[in-house]
Amino acid sequence: MDGNVKIVDVQRSIYEDNDERARLLRSELREKGVYLLNVMSSPGAGKTTTLTGLINALKDNYRIGVMEADIDSDVDARRISETGVRSIQLHTGGMCHLDSDMTRQGLDELGGDIDLAILENVGNLVCPAEFDTGAVKNIAILSVPEGDDKPLKYPLMFTVCSLVLINKIDVLPYFDFDLDKCCEYIHARNPEAEVITICAKTGEGIDKFAEWVDRELKAYKA
Amino acid sequence: MDGNVKIVDVQRSIYEDNDERARLLRSELREKGVYLLNVMSSPGAGKTTTLTGLINALKDNYRIGVMEADIDSDVDARRISETGVRSIQLHTGGMCHLDSDMTRQGLDELGGDIDLAILENVGNLVCPAEFDTGAVKNIAILSVPEGDDKPLKYPLMFTVCSLVLINKIDVLPYFDFDLDKCCEYIHARNPEAEVITICAKTGEGIDKFAEWVDRELKAYKA
Repeated sequence: MDGNVKIVDVQRSIYEDNDERARLLRSELREKGVYLLNVMSSPGAGKTTTLTGLINALKDNYRIGVMEADIDSDVDARRISETGVRSIQLHTGGMCHLDSDMTRQGLDELGGDIDLAILENVGNLVCPAEFDTGAVKNIAILSVPEGDDKPLKYPLMFTVCSLVLINKIDVLPYFDFDLDKCCEYIHARNPEAEVITICAKTGEGIDKFAEWVDRELKAYKA
Repeated sequence: MDGNVKIVDVQRSIYEDNDERARLLRSELREKGVYLLNVMSSPGAGKTTTLTGLINALKDNYRIGVMEADIDSDVDARRISETGVRSIQLHTGGMCHLDSDMTRQGLDELGGDIDLAILENVGNLVCPAEFDTGAVKNIAILSVPEGDDKPLKYPLMFTVCSLVLINKIDVLPYFDFDLDKCCEYIHARNPEAEVITICAKTGEGIDKFAEWVDRELKAYKA
């Protein structure tokens, strides 16, 4: 423990077949009524700030638990714990992604009685997209300063995500970022992907993101 | 070939010991007088724009070849080829980093008679730092929008780099980025690391980066 934050050193899976283990975890969570959301992005795209906004919008209606995955440090889990929801820090021991068994270790530490479990994956646009964590849905955050061409260069990330949040739209005037082109690139990879523009810092668009999650949770519980 | 850009599908090494293979490559390059520079960063931190500026500053004095590593697309190699230097695109087939044998395959395709070989690694702050490519020096580019805490969260990247370029300093007024704190975090990881602030888009600071590379090349050739 460091202040209010529990740090869990998650161990790499001893199982070969992550896909099968992920399916098993998903069906166990389904039984328990826990909705697992996997949030991915590049380093510094604004995952923690976005999640803080989401949690504040939903915490009166749902029991929320958050797992912050990081190679090192507990900066993010401390920020999340300030919202008052359950929050733990997962240390991956240098690993660049989480698999379903690492996620399971985190969920065990988080404890039951949760409606929404959020996994903030390691900041990395490549490897996390390759490993099914057992989540119901994956979402990606792409920030304006990274450039509109990222769906071309990191195709798998945008293929596996149901929702893409385009963050830091307050700085659009200072960057060569073509929003229409970016959406076109996303939909070329994944025609079903929804896109919501946000500014996590000012809170702009977080209401739309919270509505998306709320709809997901209601459909899951129905 | 796509236009002027040769695309090379590099294969994962069949060798277990990357460190030993990297040392071998480094000593072979030493014999040939080829200086290999490995450039790493998050997606969208500005590697290609920075390298375009560097190449334009040095191309009259040195024979330069560039390897652009990407999971997919040839956007970057086409941009580099516009500078007139030799440029190839390495496709990693989904791999999140380059090892020394993948780098060797790229160097073979690039051909000899080069003073400076630049490897633009896959956009990823985690995995590329774990694999010695055989380079003389590693450098990292950290951009202001990513946040000043990145050296805390991605410690290995800042430990293995001799030079950190802090890019996009033109947008410092729009982000909560403490330059002094960032330098402090970098030096906590690596007291020897040099730091140069740049704006690749406007060219600010690229002269200092070019002087750093020029000094490196002169020392290497001496």
